[in-house]
Amino acid sequence: MQAQLSLAQLAARCGGEIVGNPNLLITGVASLASAQAGELSFFSGASVQQLAATTAGAVILAKDDPGADQVPATVAKWLVAGAPRTYFAHAIEQLYPPAAPAVSGVSPAANIHPQAEIAAEVAIDAGAVVAAGAQIGNGCTLHAGVIIGRDCKIAAGCVLYPRVVLYPRVVLGENCTLHAGVVIGADGFGYTDNSAGGIDKVRQLGSVRIGNEVEIGANSAIDCGTLDDTIIGDHVKIDNLVQIGHNVTIGENSIICGQTGIAGSCRIGKYCVLGGKVGIADHIEIGDGVRVAGASNVTHHVKAGETVSSILPAMPIRQWRRLIVNLRRQKTTK
Amino acid sequence: MQAQLSLAQLAARCGGEIVGNPNLLITGVASLASAQAGELSFFSGASVQQLAATTAGAVILAKDDPGADQVPATVAKWLVAGAPRTYFAHAIEQLYPPAAPAVSGVSPAANIHPQAEIAAEVAIDAGAVVAAGAQIGNGCTLHAGVIIGRDCKIAAGCVLYPRVVLYPRVVLGENCTLHAGVVIGADGFGYTDNSAGGIDKVRQLGSVRIGNEVEIGANSAIDCGTLDDTIIGDHVKIDNLVQIGHNVTIGENSIICGQTGIAGSCRIGKYCVLGGKVGIADHIEIGDGVRVAGASNVTHHVKAGETVSSILPAMPIRQWRRLIVNLRRQKTTK
Amino acid sequence: MQAQLSLAQLAARCGGEIVGNPNLLITGVASLASAQAGELSFFSGASVQQLAATTAGAVILAKDDPGADQVPATVAKWLVAGAPRTYFAHAIEQLYPPAAPAVSGVSPAANIHPQAEIAAEVAIDAGAVVAAGAQIGNGCTLHAGVIIGRDCKIAAGCVLYPRVVLYPRVVLGENCTLHAGVVIGADGFGYTDNSAGGIDKVRQLGSVRIGNEVEIGANSAIDCGTLDDTIIGDHVKIDNLVQIGHNVTIGENSIICGQTGIAGSCRIGKYCVLGGKVGIADHIEIGDGVRVAGASNVTHHVKAGETVSSILPAMPIRQWRRLIVNLRRQKTTK
Repeated sequence: MQAQLSLAQLAARCGGEIVGNPNLLITGVASLASAQAGELSFFSGASVQQLAATTAGAVILAKDDPGADQVPATVAKWLVAGAPRTYFAHAIEQLYPPAAPAVSGVSPAANIHPQAEIAAEVAIDAGAVVAAGAQIGNGCTLHAGVIIGRDCKIAAGCVLYPRVVLYPRVVLGENCTLHAGVVIGADGFGYTDNSAGGIDKVRQLGSVRIGNEVEIGANSAIDCGTLDDTIIGDHVKIDNLVQIGHNVTIGENSIICGQTGIAGSCRIGKYCVLGGKVGIADHIEIGDGVRVAGASNVTHHVKAGETVSSILPAMPIRQWRRLIVNLRRQKTTK
Repeated sequence: MQAQLSLAQLAARCGGEIVGNPNLLITGVASLASAQAGELSFFSGASVQQLAATTAGAVILAKDDPGADQVPATVAKWLVAGAPRTYFAHAIEQLYPPAAPAVSGVSPAANIHPQAEIAAEVAIDAGAVVAAGAQIGNGCTLHAGVIIGRDCKIAAGCVLYPRVVLYPRVVLGENCTLHAGVVIGADGFGYTDNSAGGIDKVRQLGSVRIGNEVEIGANSAIDCGTLDDTIIGDHVKIDNLVQIGHNVTIGENSIICGQTGIAGSCRIGKYCVLGGKVGIADHIEIGDGVRVAGASNVTHHVKAGETVSSILPAMPIRQWRRLIVNLRRQKTTK
Repeated sequence: MQAQLSLAQLAARCGGEIVGNPNLLITGVASLASAQAGELSFFSGASVQQLAATTAGAVILAKDDPGADQVPATVAKWLVAGAPRTYFAHAIEQLYPPAAPAVSGVSPAANIHPQAEIAAEVAIDAGAVVAAGAQIGNGCTLHAGVIIGRDCKIAAGCVLYPRVVLYPRVVLGENCTLHAGVVIGADGFGYTDNSAGGIDKVRQLGSVRIGNEVEIGANSAIDCGTLDDTIIGDHVKIDNLVQIGHNVTIGENSIICGQTGIAGSCRIGKYCVLGGKVGIADHIEIGDGVRVAGASNVTHHVKAGETVSSILPAMPIRQWRRLIVNLRRQKTTK
C-alpha cells in the first residue's frame, strides 16, 4: 500500500538535502523510538536521547539543529529548512497515497433518489441515502450509511465517512472530509417564552455553508442558522465531539480542538486556535489569530491576536481543598 | 414553500396592530441587518442603529418601545404587547408551514418487523429498522436510518431525524423531536468492585420514559435506568451532545444547553435552565426554577429558585498567569 | 424474561446467608423505596429510614451492618461478607440472563462483503455493513446499522449496538461492548503549518487496538494513532461522549466517566478513575491508580496513586460575583 521511494527521491519532491545514503529505499515511517532500518522518522527537539539511540533508517532534522551531531553514524540525515514535522507529513503523502475507496460507483444497496444529481465518478457505499435535489460532485466518496438531505450541494472531492448526516440544503465546498457520525444542519437551539409560562420553538430556517478543504471530526455537530446560514470558512479544521451553534461564523484556517462548544451567533476570526473543551458564550466576537487555551470559557469579546485562558490546572487533592477553603473565605469576609 | 400572507393577516392570527401598510404581502423573514423589501424582521432593543437603517418591509416592536421613533418611514410597524421575538416566532409558523416529510408511507427500503405496530399515517424512510413489539403512532416520521428497539412505544406526531437509536422499551410522548444521532436507552455506567480487584458490570434493567413535546439535539445520549426508568418530563428541551446518566429525572419545561452532562440519579426540577457545558455530579437534587450558569459544575444540592455559577471567565494570558501564581501562593502559605 | 429463583438458591450461587424465609421466590429487583413483596433490594447504608420502611421481599445487607436491626420483621435478610451492591449485581446476573439478540444468523438486509470472515454463530442485524477482510468472531452480535471497516478483527463475544462504526484495521478483544454511535479509528487531529501560512493535514496511519472486556458508551470516539496504534487495555470502561485522541494508551481496568476528553499521546495507567468532564492535555503521563476528580483539567504529569482535582464548585450567583471581583483584584494589584 506504499510507494517505493528512495531518500533522494523524497528530498527531490519535498525539499531539503540528504547527508548519508541517498539511495536508501524507505519502507515505512515511524516514531524515533520505534523506527527500524529502512524506516523514516523525524526529530523536533523533544528527546535527544531518543535521537541518539534511534534505529531508524533516516531522520528528518532542521538543518541548523545542534542535535544533528547526536544522530548515529548508520542513520541517514535529511536536513530541511523548515519544521521537520511538516516535511515528515509531506513525505507520508508521497509514501502512502490515499487508499482507493472501498467501493467504486454506486452500491446497489445505496438508496439514491431519482431526482438527485450524482457526478460520473463517485463512490457511494451500501446503506447511503441521497434525497431529491441533492448534488454530489465528482470524486466524492460517501461511505456506508451516509445520509444526504434534500437539495444539499456537495462539491468535488469530498469524503464523508460512515453515518454522516446532512440535513437539507447544506452546502459543502471542495475536498472536505467529514468523519463518522458528524451531523450538519440540525435545528439550532432556539426557543421563546410563551404567554402560558412555557416555551415555544423558534423555527430554524437557515442551513449551513461549509468552505473548501474543511475537516470535521467524529460525532461533531453544526447547527443550521435561524434565518441566515451558519458559515464555516475554507481550511477550517474541527476535531471530534465539537458543538457549533446556530448562526456562528468561523473564519478560514481556524482550528477547533475536541469537545469545544461555540454557542449561537458567535463570530470567530481567521487563523484562530481554540484548544480542547473550550466554551464560547453566545454572541461573542473573537478576532483573527486569537488563541484560547484548552478548557477555558470565553464570556467577553476577544481582540485580534490575543491569547486568553481560564484553565485551572488540577493539583493534589489536599492543595485543592485548601484552595477552595481560601476562595470561600474571601467570598464571605470581603 | 411559504404561505402568502399580508401583515394584517399575520396580525389577525398572532395579535398586535399594524402601523403602516396592512396589505403588505410578506415574502420572507430576515434579521434587521439583512431584511429586504417585503421581508419581516423584529427589534428586541439590541441595536437602534440597525433599526434606523433597516430595509425590511416590516418590523415587529414592543408597542411601548421608544425605538419605534427610529423606524424608517417606509417600513411598516407591527406593534405587539409581548416580546417581539415571540411574535416573530409565531409569524414564522404562519409563513413557513412545516415541510412535508421526504417520504410518505413506509419506504420499501425500510426494515419493519412483522410484529411491530405501525399506525396508518406515518413516514418511514429508507434504512430505518423497527424491531418486534415496537409501536409507532400516527403522524410520526422516522427519517433514514432510524433504529427502534424492541417494544418501544412512540406516541403520535414524533419526528426522529436520521440515525436516531432507541434501545428496547423506550417510551416517547407525543410530538417529540429527536435530532440526528441521538441515542436513548444505552446502558447506564454502573460497575461494582469485585473480589479480584477488578470491576463487574451492574446490569441496567430500566429504560427511558420521555414526555410530550420534548426536543433532543444531535448526538445527545440519555441512558436507561438501573432498576427504574430515567424520566424526562413534558416540554423539556435538550441541546446537542448532552449526556444524561441513568436514573435521572428532569422536570417539565426545563432547558438543558449544549454539552451539559448530568451524572446518574440526579433530580432536576421543573422550569430549570442549565447553561452550556454544565456538569452536575451524581445524586444531586436541583429544585424548580434553578438556573445554572454555563460551564459551571454543581456538586451540592440547589434549592428552588436559586441561580448558581462557578464559571471562571477567560482573561488575557498574562493576567491568567498572575492569577494562577496567586492561587498557588495562597495554597502553600495559609 | 427472568429466572425463578429462591433466596436460598441465590445465596448458594452468590454467597452469604439467609435470615428469614429461604424459600421466598424472588420475582424481581428494585430500589429500597420501590421494592414490593417478592422483590429483592439492597442496603448500602444510605438511608436507614428507607430500610425501616421497605416493603421489599428481601434485602441484602453487610453481615455486620447495625442497620440490620431496622429491617421490618416481614422482610428476609440476605447477609453478605462484602459490598451489598456487588452481591445485588451478581443476583441480577442470575435473575436476568442476558436477552437473546433480536436476530440470529445474518439478516438478509445486512451487507457482508464476500471476503469478510464471519464465524458460524453470530447475530448480524439489518443494515449492518462488513467490509472485505474483516473477521467477526463467534458469538458476536452486530446490531442494526453497525459498520465494520476493512480488515477489522473482532474477537469472540462482542456486542456492537446500532450504528457503531469501526474504521479499517481496528482490533477488538473478546467480550467487548460498544454502545450505539461509537466511532473507533477516525483520523487523529494532526496538522502541521505549511509554508503558505496555512495548515497541512498529517496523514494518520495507525489504528486502534482494544483489549478484552472493554465497554464504551454511546457516541464516544477513539481516534486512530498517527504512526502506531491507539491502545485501550483489558477491562477498561468508558462512558458516553468521551473523546480519546490519537496515540493514547490506557492501562487495564481504568474507568473513564462521561464527556471526559484525553488529548493526543497521553499515557493513562492501570486502575485509574477519571471523573466526568475531565480534560487531559496532550502528552500527559498519568500513573497507575490515579484518581482525577470530575470536571478537572490535568496539565502536568500525575504520579501513581495520586488524587488530583481542579473543580470549582458552583455557588450562589452573588457569592460567585464577589469571588470573581476578588480574583480580578489580585490579578491587578500584585
